Amino acid sequence: MSDLPKKVRINEEGPREGFQIEKGPISTGQKIALIDSLSKTGLKQIQTVSFVPAKNVPGMADADEVVRGFTRAPGVAYTGLWLNEKGLQRAIATGKLDIKGTLLLCASENFLQRNQNRGFKENIEAQHRMVAVYQEHQIPVIRAGLAAAFGCNFEGDVPLARILEMLREMLDIGEQYGLKLEVISLADTMAWATPVSIKRVVGAVRDKYPDLPISLHLHDTRGMGIANAYAGLEMGVGIYDATVGGLGGCPFAAHRGAAGNVCTEDLVFMCHEMGIETGVDLEALMESALMAQEIVGHELPGTVMKGGSLAKLRQKIAAAAV
Amino acid sequence: MSDLPKKVRINEEGPREGFQIEKGPISTGQKIALIDSLSKTGLKQIQTVSFVPAKNVPGMADADEVVRGFTRAPGVAYTGLWLNEKGLQRAIATGKLDIKGTLLLCASENFLQRNQNRGFKENIEAQHRMVAVYQEHQIPVIRAGLAAAFGCNFEGDVPLARILEMLREMLDIGEQYGLKLEVISLADTMAWATPVSIKRVVGAVRDKYPDLPISLHLHDTRGMGIANAYAGLEMGVGIYDATVGGLGGCPFAAHRGAAGNVCTEDLVFMCHEMGIETGVDLEALMESALMAQEIVGHELPGTVMKGGSLAKLRQKIAAAAV
Repeated sequence: MSDLPKKVRINEEGPREGFQIEKGPISTGQKIALIDSLSKTGLKQIQTVSFVPAKNVPGMADADEVVRGFTRAPGVAYTGLWLNEKGLQRAIATGKLDIKGTLLLCASENFLQRNQNRGFKENIEAQHRMVAVYQEHQIPVIRAGLAAAFGCNFEGDVPLARILEMLREMLDIGEQYGLKLEVISLADTMAWATPVSIKRVVGAVRDKYPDLPISLHLHDTRGMGIANAYAGLEMGVGIYDATVGGLGGCPFAAHRGAAGNVCTEDLVFMCHEMGIETGVDLEALMESALMAQEIVGHELPGTVMKGGSLAKLRQKIAAAAV
Repeated sequence: MSDLPKKVRINEEGPREGFQIEKGPISTGQKIALIDSLSKTGLKQIQTVSFVPAKNVPGMADADEVVRGFTRAPGVAYTGLWLNEKGLQRAIATGKLDIKGTLLLCASENFLQRNQNRGFKENIEAQHRMVAVYQEHQIPVIRAGLAAAFGCNFEGDVPLARILEMLREMLDIGEQYGLKLEVISLADTMAWATPVSIKRVVGAVRDKYPDLPISLHLHDTRGMGIANAYAGLEMGVGIYDATVGGLGGCPFAAHRGAAGNVCTEDLVFMCHEMGIETGVDLEALMESALMAQEIVGHELPGTVMKGGSLAKLRQKIAAAAV
């Protein structure tokens, strides 16, 4: 158990993951209210919106307004998602986001075709073009992200060799342009991972690139989210994407049961109970989760917001014993 | 990863755990249909009902009829639950259950008082009386079970020393009466466990009693069920209670969000994907889970029945590639 990190950093992606897929309609004001609520929980990074065409993702049609509307809290990085230069330009135009660049490959060519209408080769070319754009705007490119790293609904299991090859591609681009990549992000976009495959892939990547921190983006479509996060913790992974209440799902996965990410408050609960710091106020986060549930108008998969924290129970028990 | 067992045995407790807490009304015929459906999945043990007073648990008022109604499948053990001699007599009277005795202590005296109106001392005395009854009926007593082993909503964290002391008590009773105890069952009745505490407790018990197999009964109220099962697997634990669809909850836990056990099909999915045999046909089990969901009339927490198995996706992908 000594490999568990002392601290983890959680990137909250609920507003972006959730509102891009919820049927809604969800008002701009509600989206802003959730972001403002999350800003008071101690989370250090919140992904607020994605800048994608409204015709593809109607829930993000008001992305620019959402960003205009929320109140920046000190010490919190507010991020956005974009898949091309046009999206990036919109993000820059808000003047209010913490903009960093990501190299983003996908381990499944089939998924890439469906999702972005590109093959492997075109996607690598697109990364080169994006780096040029980032550099033109003096935006640091700090992340190498790999989507579908654990499997794909359209292509099946992903060979480890392909994962390593794609990371190599990104690190080569990094070297070529003098980027200072700070983190490798492995995404289980379609929920194919189990604790064993998390350990296998993370272990292989860490062996190859021992100095580059790894982050995990885990979907919970097959109920493995928290167990996979635990496997990550056991491998020393200290950065996780998560969504409050378990909001989300991928609009392109064409999957009847596509569930959201691992749930932020459940992850925070697990970390705290295992002695791992997150810097997050769990009770405040549970309030945000209940707010998210009210906004979307249906039950969200998060459990701790329903079951209650143990910290609160311990307080109650201690008070009763006095 | 080498500690993972090659095989696990799953005791299905959905009919008992689920129907004792669901508001219903659920017809006797529906309960029987679910048991018969589960009988065809490859599960080797199904807990069908509990024999408890109907005024305490109205959903079990028809327990005797349910047992009369289902069809025994070869190779499946059908069990029931009872907390006293009267319940046991009802179980015996069905003439149709696989009846084995359990020594059952509870690590929280407060919970024991609320649940069974007994203190620690009276409960140990009650175990002695029950052993006499079992022996009178030539029923083997094979299990030592400890409820609330990981924490209690009314008493808080449970010290490891108390767990070991209670197991010692049960093993002493076992020696005194010449019982052949085959398994120690540790129950996280109120969902206080995390992977770290699972490892700590299982490790301590295994160190003390290396020859006694351990089984885990895990509730999912705070979303840790599957991660806790994974921690158990990592410790070599090869026996798990689980409920189809994640049915259940404890009628005495007085807990607004009391969730059911770890979900059987999610657990089977995880095991199969990690190369661990269960003997269960996952697709058939998912059908049972969907049936359970229809019977209770609301969404159940199980995820794989909604997200779909990967085995099926792999087949589809392979077929498309031909």
